[in-house]
Amino acid sequence: MSTPRASQGTADLRDLARRLAAAGATVGADDVAALVEGVAAAPEAWDAEAWLALVGGKPDAALKAELGRHVETARAGRIAEKVSPSRSQRLTQLRAELARRDLEGFIVPRADEHQGEYVPARAERLAWLTGFTGSAGAAIVLKDRAAVFIDGRYVLQVKDEVNPVDYAYCHLVDEPPAEWIAKSLKPKGRLGYDPWLHTPNDVERLTKACAKAGGELVAVDINPIDIVWADQPPPPLAPVVAHDVAFAGAPSAEKRRDVAAILAADTVDAQILSDPASVAWLLNIRGADVPNTPFALAFALIHADASVDLFVDRRKLAPGLIAHLGNEVRVAAPADLVTTLVRFGKAKMRLGLDPAGSPEWVRRRAQAAGAEIVFRDDPCALPKACKNPIEIEGTRTAHRRDGAALTRFLAWLSRTAPKGGLTEIVAAERLEAFRREGERIRSLSFSTISGAGPNGAIVHYRVSDATNRVLESGSLYLVDSGAQYLDGTTDVTRTVTIGTPPAEARDRFTRVLKGHIAIATLRFPEGTTGSQIDILARRPLWEAGLDYDHGTGHGVGSFLGVHEGPHRISKLANRVAFKPGMIVSNEPGYYKTGAYGIRIENLVTVVAIDPPAGAERKLLGFETLTLAPIDTALIEPSLLAPDEIAWLDAYHRRVHETIGPLVDAETRVWLEQATRPIGKG
Amino acid sequence: MSTPRASQGTADLRDLARRLAAAGATVGADDVAALVEGVAAAPEAWDAEAWLALVGGKPDAALKAELGRHVETARAGRIAEKVSPSRSQRLTQLRAELARRDLEGFIVPRADEHQGEYVPARAERLAWLTGFTGSAGAAIVLKDRAAVFIDGRYVLQVKDEVNPVDYAYCHLVDEPPAEWIAKSLKPKGRLGYDPWLHTPNDVERLTKACAKAGGELVAVDINPIDIVWADQPPPPLAPVVAHDVAFAGAPSAEKRRDVAAILAADTVDAQILSDPASVAWLLNIRGADVPNTPFALAFALIHADASVDLFVDRRKLAPGLIAHLGNEVRVAAPADLVTTLVRFGKAKMRLGLDPAGSPEWVRRRAQAAGAEIVFRDDPCALPKACKNPIEIEGTRTAHRRDGAALTRFLAWLSRTAPKGGLTEIVAAERLEAFRREGERIRSLSFSTISGAGPNGAIVHYRVSDATNRVLESGSLYLVDSGAQYLDGTTDVTRTVTIGTPPAEARDRFTRVLKGHIAIATLRFPEGTTGSQIDILARRPLWEAGLDYDHGTGHGVGSFLGVHEGPHRISKLANRVAFKPGMIVSNEPGYYKTGAYGIRIENLVTVVAIDPPAGAERKLLGFETLTLAPIDTALIEPSLLAPDEIAWLDAYHRRVHETIGPLVDAETRVWLEQATRPIGKG
Repeated sequence: MSTPRASQGTADLRDLARRLAAAGATVGADDVAALVEGVAAAPEAWDAEAWLALVGGKPDAALKAELGRHVETARAGRIAEKVSPSRSQRLTQLRAELARRDLEGFIVPRADEHQGEYVPARAERLAWLTGFTGSAGAAIVLKDRAAVFIDGRYVLQVKDEVNPVDYAYCHLVDEPPAEWIAKSLKPKGRLGYDPWLHTPNDVERLTKACAKAGGELVAVDINPIDIVWADQPPPPLAPVVAHDVAFAGAPSAEKRRDVAAILAADTVDAQILSDPASVAWLLNIRGADVPNTPFALAFALIHADASVDLFVDRRKLAPGLIAHLGNEVRVAAPADLVTTLVRFGKAKMRLGLDPAGSPEWVRRRAQAAGAEIVFRDDPCALPKACKNPIEIEGTRTAHRRDGAALTRFLAWLSRTAPKGGLTEIVAAERLEAFRREGERIRSLSFSTISGAGPNGAIVHYRVSDATNRVLESGSLYLVDSGAQYLDGTTDVTRTVTIGTPPAEARDRFTRVLKGHIAIATLRFPEGTTGSQIDILARRPLWEAGLDYDHGTGHGVGSFLGVHEGPHRISKLANRVAFKPGMIVSNEPGYYKTGAYGIRIENLVTVVAIDPPAGAERKLLGFETLTLAPIDTALIEPSLLAPDEIAWLDAYHRRVHETIGPLVDAETRVWLEQATRPIGKG
Repeated sequence: MSTPRASQGTADLRDLARRLAAAGATVGADDVAALVEGVAAAPEAWDAEAWLALVGGKPDAALKAELGRHVETARAGRIAEKVSPSRSQRLTQLRAELARRDLEGFIVPRADEHQGEYVPARAERLAWLTGFTGSAGAAIVLKDRAAVFIDGRYVLQVKDEVNPVDYAYCHLVDEPPAEWIAKSLKPKGRLGYDPWLHTPNDVERLTKACAKAGGELVAVDINPIDIVWADQPPPPLAPVVAHDVAFAGAPSAEKRRDVAAILAADTVDAQILSDPASVAWLLNIRGADVPNTPFALAFALIHADASVDLFVDRRKLAPGLIAHLGNEVRVAAPADLVTTLVRFGKAKMRLGLDPAGSPEWVRRRAQAAGAEIVFRDDPCALPKACKNPIEIEGTRTAHRRDGAALTRFLAWLSRTAPKGGLTEIVAAERLEAFRREGERIRSLSFSTISGAGPNGAIVHYRVSDATNRVLESGSLYLVDSGAQYLDGTTDVTRTVTIGTPPAEARDRFTRVLKGHIAIATLRFPEGTTGSQIDILARRPLWEAGLDYDHGTGHGVGSFLGVHEGPHRISKLANRVAFKPGMIVSNEPGYYKTGAYGIRIENLVTVVAIDPPAGAERKLLGFETLTLAPIDTALIEPSLLAPDEIAWLDAYHRRVHETIGPLVDAETRVWLEQATRPIGKG
């Protein structure tokens, strides 16, 4: 529990409490400071007053403003760069804490309890300790040495952020933590880890690594960083709200029944759900605890009788949420998870657990209590991925709004960029502003990638003041962006030329487009996986001795994660076959380091195809959801086959017909031009 | 040890021994009967006198003939169908033996100690017990019930061969042994298995299945079938001969050094080699213990110091072989493997073992003796797959001979089939006869698939008197065949029309051809696997709602297995990237049950491709090795793209130029016609 800050003196608080009570607030005087800290530990919402729902009652404008100031003050205090203790001092403090516990070392992953892509401020232990702010990585601290592990994206960034005197830099793939441990841990050395932050699969790898070194992997009860991190933020408190069945397409009770039937068929008594996206999907609830993904951090147990235990901080629940959840969903505090697991274990029940996603802590506690652990996939992952007809119709609608915003941006860009001086930051802000004007938008679905010239070649580029470039004539500009709408999640990349493009870029762009079209037009039998089809997006580049070093497509949620499984298009092995209703991105690219980047990304959804005469297999294919022009100035038509030209022209006709009526006259004129057919027909 | 048969009375033997001694034979009177039995337990060699090398000395024609008669008598006695004991009696005897050992049941896989595709007569325990002669399967015998497990290929065959009163029929994939055990084994029931015939991976699965039933998996010391099978053949004794470095391309010492370096890098002291193909490749030796694959059944230990322990019956070694093996290869009896493992274990050494290929017996014995087991792939698999330039040149030469034989056959077929009455068996025999006329041939590489009309649609069809069909006018004929030459192994499928083909078959054939060409012409970056490219062979069929239910390609050895790993072209996950020198088949197909089958199979080898201007990745591609005409009467040219027509015409030009000079005038006239270009150019 966090304590009131200096900025909220006792007298202040007493006055605030009196006024809250007068306004009928449900939050008492003792709790408001903690609520403010929790709200400040969540990302800033576009609707700055949304959190006030958690206060209850009817505060007047002055009281709202005062509460808002408290949150701002708390947030400002959290964001301000702390200079003391220095990173080196933090490392020293951690080592002292490890010594107290007789640990030779400790592993600090960039992870929260949910193995999320976005983690709350409280879970940014790696950044606090080492300074490294990348979205993937880990550190291992031993008595006499330490290392930070990063992947290819962060090779440059880590040098700016992490002190090489304190930490060796290691490559996550070439020299993974397990290898480093096997070489570096002392014989009989005890390496600590926080079982909340690692999965059983992680622990298996780490255990072997420690054994190889003759040492031992040891689970800690309390993360030592949480001891030495004096001003660690509390867990975030953002409102948990109902997700209207008009968007979700199916009532929670129906989803719970379907998932329960899967568990029952496997004779599993219950399964732990640790992915907040699964909890959000199953219960038709949404939250705002982390950036870009509208879920609430929570654990749940789904039982074979279709009832659910939801472990969530009640302070987060918006008014009416308990009623929305209904009788079959028992709400309990996060701390009650352990009691439930113990009870479950004592009854010798069979507990399903995803060994690649759920915390080792749950496995240990449940098993110790007597439960039988059954390793199996998250039972919500597949049904969540297969969108129902209402979700599909919703995402089509969201894509029309999103396409209109992107088209307005591209038209604006074509007028603005040639004047010179337009920067990546200004462009990204302008695109966000166009999107914010659309209905049902709640946030971006990820930080916009706005890359001019050579910055476009950095696959996971995030613009900063230091890297901000002007969009120059004769160069390419790549913009990858998306938003969270109540009725769907978008993710789209367009690459445009500023002025006349170099001939080489047109060749490369056309090859990327050929790969994109090959995926878009593919028909395939049931049972086909994304691993099988990935090559089609690459072959036109391979012909020229080129390729790109990322996957071709990722699953996308419905007002949920912009990256979701279990399907994907990738050369990596994946056993999940495409099923109707799945949404996946189609995003081949080409990147010339130091020069330019190209990516063409549309979202597509899997649909059944009318079988041709004589067909013996049921066929599936893709319907393209994303609607925005593809820059024809970057296309070399002689490289396209007639059916590829036909696809492009038909796509542009559809973009023109659908988006034209949704945009202003000036944009419409530009769109008319941008979607003109390149074929003779 | 087998005992002399009735046909070899004591007096006979004494006389034989005297004459052998007079001829300078190295085999004594006591050993000749066992040698004869061992030779008879090996497949019949094309060179019927080859085995006489094992007798030693210089026997005259009369003595050779007499020895030959002894082998023939022994072989005839082995092959004759035994009516007593009946299959049901055998089952009863087995159950009695299990009861003596307090076993609830026993599992009988169709497997030998080497997990080979072809097994020696001695290892045909499944066939002896149940009557089932398929190339894959298993039986499980419990006290009160038994089941035989077969895959889709054998659904009909099992009904002819296995008594349904004694055995339930189960599908290997839909209801695998592990599932059946989990349901059928009694609580506390002990299920026996022979650890020589199962891998550690098998045992892991079976252990879990038994545990699920509340029972136990128990390793047996002696296979109970070997106790009740009174006239079980001895292990085969076929000559082990040196494989000339002129064909192998690299001396054994060099290979051993390279493999040892891999072990040393992994700090493994030695690895058990249980795949006889690995032993054959490593030591440049060949044998004839099983049909179609020219290796000797043997185990070996390759040490990190590049020395080898070879465990093989010395009676098999042809004169001079010990010298060929050299000082670094220690020859020991098969029974000495256990002593070596125990010595190894006592020294606490690290033993590499392939958990998917090596016997559980080795793991158990070595581990019990104190060795540390390191699960890793067979270290010979990858270097064996990457053929050296001499092997590649050898296989090109072998393919020219093989192509000439196949072309002569196809020309003969075009003359003979229209006359009517030609059967699948006669056709297959004629093809074999053409091949036998070629140099360096040692055997077929598998039983020829000779399928007329509907029989062509049975993917693993083997013609028998019962199924033998006439090649009828207006039907398709599919022939899949290959041979073992000293300088290379071949495997080729052609589908031809007898008379005018139906229009649908031309459409399907052309789609299969398009898939074949897509693989043949592909360029791909280093690191690409067969899982990635498989789709290219299927896409033209998918477009029409069609597909085929087998992989697209398998690795092929160099005068070794016609099916070898570790690479393949398949939609199943495979992490082994193509490397120059690998040989793989390219064999898409289409099968219409009850009507016809189509397959076009060439072998290809992976080659480096000259990079196009601006290439950033090293490119690989395929060189087609197989040379024989593809039936143009089955091609619908309007379905082919210009570059596909160009590939076909260029291929046929090459076939004509290469094979034309190698065949008779009549065949050459036919070839001229068969390879005429279909394009306008």
